[in-house]
Parts: sequence; structure tokens; C-alpha cells
Amino acid sequence: MPVLVMKFGGTSVATLDRIRRAAKRVGVEVAKGYDVIVIVSAMSGKTNELVGWVNETSPLYDAREYDAVVSSGENVTAGLMALTLQEMDVPARSWQGWQVPVKTTSAHSQARIEEIPTDNITAKFGEGMKVAVVAGFQGVSPEGRITTLGRGGSDTTAVAFAAAFGAERCDIYTDVDGVYTTDPRVEAKARKLDRIAFEEMLELASLGAKVLQTRSVELAMRYKVKLRVLSSFEEQSDEAGTLVCDEEEIMESNVVAGVAFSRDEAKMTLVSVADRPGIAASIFTALSEGGVNVDMIVQNISEEGRTDMTWSCPTDQVMRAQKAVEAAKENGVINYQEVIADTDVAKVSVVGIGMRSHTGVAAKMFQVMSAEGINIKVITTSEIKISVLIDRKYMELAVQALHDAFDLDKAA
Amino acid sequence: MPVLVMKFGGTSVATLDRIRRAAKRVGVEVAKGYDVIVIVSAMSGKTNELVGWVNETSPLYDAREYDAVVSSGENVTAGLMALTLQEMDVPARSWQGWQVPVKTTSAHSQARIEEIPTDNITAKFGEGMKVAVVAGFQGVSPEGRITTLGRGGSDTTAVAFAAAFGAERCDIYTDVDGVYTTDPRVEAKARKLDRIAFEEMLELASLGAKVLQTRSVELAMRYKVKLRVLSSFEEQSDEAGTLVCDEEEIMESNVVAGVAFSRDEAKMTLVSVADRPGIAASIFTALSEGGVNVDMIVQNISEEGRTDMTWSCPTDQVMRAQKAVEAAKENGVINYQEVIADTDVAKVSVVGIGMRSHTGVAAKMFQVMSAEGINIKVITTSEIKISVLIDRKYMELAVQALHDAFDLDKAA
Repeated sequence: MPVLVMKFGGTSVATLDRIRRAAKRVGVEVAKGYDVIVIVSAMSGKTNELVGWVNETSPLYDAREYDAVVSSGENVTAGLMALTLQEMDVPARSWQGWQVPVKTTSAHSQARIEEIPTDNITAKFGEGMKVAVVAGFQGVSPEGRITTLGRGGSDTTAVAFAAAFGAERCDIYTDVDGVYTTDPRVEAKARKLDRIAFEEMLELASLGAKVLQTRSVELAMRYKVKLRVLSSFEEQSDEAGTLVCDEEEIMESNVVAGVAFSRDEAKMTLVSVADRPGIAASIFTALSEGGVNVDMIVQNISEEGRTDMTWSCPTDQVMRAQKAVEAAKENGVINYQEVIADTDVAKVSVVGIGMRSHTGVAAKMFQVMSAEGINIKVITTSEIKISVLIDRKYMELAVQALHDAFDLDKAA
Repeated sequence: MPVLVMKFGGTSVATLDRIRRAAKRVGVEVAKGYDVIVIVSAMSGKTNELVGWVNETSPLYDAREYDAVVSSGENVTAGLMALTLQEMDVPARSWQGWQVPVKTTSAHSQARIEEIPTDNITAKFGEGMKVAVVAGFQGVSPEGRITTLGRGGSDTTAVAFAAAFGAERCDIYTDVDGVYTTDPRVEAKARKLDRIAFEEMLELASLGAKVLQTRSVELAMRYKVKLRVLSSFEEQSDEAGTLVCDEEEIMESNVVAGVAFSRDEAKMTLVSVADRPGIAASIFTALSEGGVNVDMIVQNISEEGRTDMTWSCPTDQVMRAQKAVEAAKENGVINYQEVIADTDVAKVSVVGIGMRSHTGVAAKMFQVMSAEGINIKVITTSEIKISVLIDRKYMELAVQALHDAFDLDKAA
């Protein structure tokens, strides 16, 4: 029997009624002849409640205990989903991560899946079971302790199972009906994409589109797992949602596939640093050792041997960054006049594999910003994306103007 | 190091504050030099919520999935308790049932513990860990699936760990400060017992005193585990609470140790059954096969070859009992005119190991009931208890009168 993986996120299993609705979708696929592996998240709100308790109990918690507590929400949904399927006369049973076992690294709270043995579940399929319901987001370390994969980790669980079982497809059921050219709440003309390339999805996910966990897309790309994002709240056809696939499977596409944005980026500047060889290395080594994820970097023109160094990082790492550079200053590793943090900025990006073969995308983007009177503070580019940091108040305007300029409301 | 087992029930870990309070108690015992095994229940209300979801999803649920869902509450508390202890600088970690592993039978939802290997936890004690926090109520079957031990099963987990680790004592922390001669809500003069014999505790637990799960007392008696029941809401000395122990360790005791009662008993009567040899066997085989737990039995005097057969069973098994006798009638196994169920009854019992050597307890009990004008419907006795079934409206009166008559407000 061909295997299909279906993943239901927190809002799709938020109540017993919604679990029933999801189970019906599973029943439809079983009727088509699939052996189905269902990956479930915790009922929405449950994981946040558990995380809240852990943080209140122990702000600098032992990540092993955090994982033991926080993973319990998925176990509840897995059991309830199996029971719901059984009520519909679909032979089903639940698996917790350690029962499969989903073998991961020991990096608690951000573990990586290393191996998923298939024999256990395959044997049950052989005995007539039609659906294996697996608790997402969790696994077990070599030491036999429960691990979790980081927030949104159930997407990664789903893709990893699809890869391990050679599934025909991995369907991610969520509260949106696919991947859009941009967030419809910001640009009403946003258009659902029928297909998007892995690389594009990866950039969009990293840049703030919350529809899929970044690592799940990486994994899908590496193992060529066909990934479909679709809504659990609408009647579905085989063509519903957005298929995330190899770029060879996409016949025609716009040069730019989508516009992403993020409000969670802060801009930081070290004012008047000595401009000497190795200074950038010193600063960014200090930040890296302080656990700061630096995204964009820009260095001002040097004047009289001094320069300003600017970077962006997630808003919630500003304090950490400040401490890191202050410590480096105290230790004499670097020297600067002051450190300025600007959290009133936003990052806007355009993404598209077409940029590899089409020139002029960056120039067009800058023209659009200029025409709207938006000042660009920092720029970064990759082969298939261009990101700019701008004042937060212009974010919506920038997204709408770029969406228009690149004709994203029209199919290729 | 001597090992101490401490069990905290649902109300004792109902909030993060209460978990902190419980953890402080654990810290006190660690400071005395114990290696401590803490058994925790789910935060109060959590298990009921999970059971409710399962029942709503699937009234005739797969008990394996029930166990997978319902066991999750204890995992949350175990992790939070370990984190709380770590915050107090007490080296601690949590274990879920399958991690120990707590090996049980496959009788899901009412599994029995078969073995608790001690090597894993003992090794950690050897490495300097002071507290092993274990999720109560759960284990793992030979098939590798999660099992639960029945409601109140965390008491049994605690006693089983105390037996396996040769613990000096097993302290059951709960919302009452010990075992009373009767429920203080019914008789204000109820007195806390300093000590009670295993056999007496077993009868009291079976007869409706909810302070300890019956099976935990059985287990403690078999393995001679010293069991102490005490309050988690009061400052404690070593002499606090009630010690459940061997009768040899009790110097002086009243003939009657306590008065128990239960409102959950129903009286059922088969009217006009043929009075022939084997008829009782036929009736009670049918009930037993129908899953009915018959408690008391009485057979009326026979008239013209017909008799009435009366028994008591838990109120929630009345429907089941009715179906069982109706089926037996249809199959021609038994014959009767009608079946009457009276759920407006209560069972009142006096319990005491002194009854083995003192005569006249039954006579005195019946005199007390008679003096109060209470009609006795059914009687059962064992070596150390006498139970009567009476109209429910007289229950409080009967308990108070018996408590008085046997001088239970005075220590021996």
C-alpha cells in the first residue's frame, strides 16, 4: 500500500469536534487505499500553558525536564485521534515518540531526528491497521530521555516520517489554505500559489512566513518529500493547497514568488569602533559566543580610523547582544563609544528562484522603495532573495508596493 | 543511604505554589540524609478532564488509548516537581513509568505492577542525585504500551517503589492529616488515629474511606511497607499523621477502630425465584459473568418453593446487573417474577482487629441501630468487620450513634 503522511497542527485539533473533522479527512485518504501516518500537534494553547508553567517554575530550566513536561500535549491528541478513528471503524493506534522510537540527538528542546525505524509501524500496517497516529514534536535521546524538536517541530516530524516511509506525499493541514505571495492580512491582493519551489519556501519560512517550520522544509528538500500545505477547515480536492516541490516540477513561475516580512528584527549599531583589520571578526565572534543570531551586517565608511558597525538580530536577543559587546569591551577585545539598539524596524524581503536567471530585481526593489519615500537602512541578498531593513511604520506600504510592482497578484 | 518514598496526591500538587510547598517537604527529608523517591499524581482536575475527553470521544474506548491519554497528567507534574527541586539546589530528575521501567500486566486501565527494576534509579543516587521524581499511576505493558493502575493508582505506585527499594517508610501526603475513626464531616467527634493495622486500613479502604487506594494497602501489608498518611498542608513532625503498620506494632487499641460508610451501594432483589439447589450459583454466576461486583447477599425464607434473593452492588453497576439477570432468564438459566433495584440505601460498617478476640460487637451494633429505630436490610460480616445496609436517610444518624456507642472519640 502507498503511504501518505498527514499532519494536523494545533488549531486543527483544538477541540474534540475539530479532531473529528480531521479524522474524517484521514478516513477519506484511507478509503482511497493509503496506509496513513497521522502526525498531531498539541491542542492549541496547551503547549503554551505547559511552557508557561516551566518558565514560572524555573526560568533557567533544565531542558530535559522542559522536554518531559512540554511533550505531553501531543500524547493527549495522539490518543484522542486514535480513539476518534476507531469510533469511525478505521483501525488505528497511537504512538508516542519513544514507542516508535523517533531517535534524536541529545540537544534537548532543539533536538534533531537521527533515525526513525519503520519496522514497528510497518508490521502493524501488515496486520490490517490503517492509521498510525504519532505524537509530533518529540523523540527520545540516546540516553532514553524525552526530547523535543523546537517550536513547530511537528512539521519536521511529519516530513521525517514521510522520508523514512517513502511516503507518496506529506500533507500539512493548517489554518490557512496554502502558501500565499504575501500575508493576505497586509495585502488583500495576495494570491495563493499552486506550487512553490523548496528553496523559495525555505527562504520564506526563514524570513517570517509562519506556515511551515524552516527545518521541515530543509528536510523535505534534502529527501525530496513532496509537501502540500492545505487547510483543515475546507473541503479538499487533490489539487487543494500549495505543493512545495522541486523547481523542475514547476512549469512557469514569476521571477519573484513572494514578499515576506518580519517585525521581530532589531537594528543595532556600535558607534565609533576602531577601523582596523580583524575588528569585524572580534565583534561578531563576541556576539556569536553570546548566543546572538546576527542576520544582516553593514559597515559604514571609515572616517579618521573610526567606523560604525551595524547589524540586525531578533528583537528578543537585543539584551543578550548588549551584554556580549559590553563584556568584550571590558575585556579589551573591542572598543567603541556607544551601542544603539533600534527595535522600531522591520525586514521586508522578496524571494524567487527566477532571480537566478533574471537581473534587475534588486534595482527594481530599490526603485520601488525610493518612489514611496522609504529609506533603506540595511540590505542583504542571497541567490534567490533580497532583504531590506526599514522603519517599521513603512512595512505595510513596502509590502503592498512590492507586491504590485512584481505583479504578484497575477499568475505567471 | 536509607531510602524514603514520599507520595503527593492531586490536591498537594494542584498549583505551582503547592508543588513548591511539597518540594520543601522533600528538601527537609533530603537534609536528614535520605535518598528520596517522590511519586506524584496529576494536578487535581487534570485526570478528570482527560477522562472526560476520552469518554466524549469514544464511550466504549480502547483502554490502551485511554491509558496513553490519561497518563499524561502525571508526566507534567513529575517534570515540574523535578524543576522545582533543582531550583532549590536539590539534585533531582523525573522518570516516566516506561523510563524506570514500571513493568505491569497488560490489563489496561487496571494493570498490576509486576516488577520495578531498581538499577537505573539506584545508579543515579550513586552519582549524587538526591531525589527521583516518578510519575505515579502508570507503567508499561510487556507489549511496550502505556498502562495505568486504576483511579488512585499513585498510592499503589508509591508502595510498590517502597517495597522494591526497601524504603524505610512510605509517606502518603494528602489533603487530610491522617486516618480518622470516621469521616469528620459526618461526626464532628471523629478522632485521628496515631496507628492503624494493615487489616483495618484495608477494610476501611474497601468500605468507602477514600484516604488510600485499597490495592496500595494490600501491597503494603504483603511487603510490610510502613505506610504513613499525613497532610501536605501542615507543618510536619516525625510523629504526624497516621502510621499504617503491623498489628504487633500497635500496643493498645479499641475493639473497634473505625466506622466506615458508603453511599454508592445499591440493593437489588430478585422476587420469587424457584428455591432449588444450585439457584444461588446460577444467579451469582450470571452476575459475575456480567461484570457485577456483588458485595452482600441475603436469601429470604422460602415459601411454597419460592424465595426472594437480595444482594448489594455498586450503584453504577445496577444496569449491568439488570441486563445480566434478564439474559439469564431468557436463556432459561433462572426464573423470577421481577427484579427490584433500590438505590436509596447506604452501607455502614464497624471495623476493628479487636473483634477477633472480643465477642458481642455485632450484638451491640444491632442494639444501637434498633434503639435509633433504624431497620437493617442486609448484613455481612468478616473476621474484623460488620456491615449493614440501611435506608440512606439514616446513614449519618447510624454513623454518629455507632461512633458514640463504641467510644471512638476516646483513645484506648
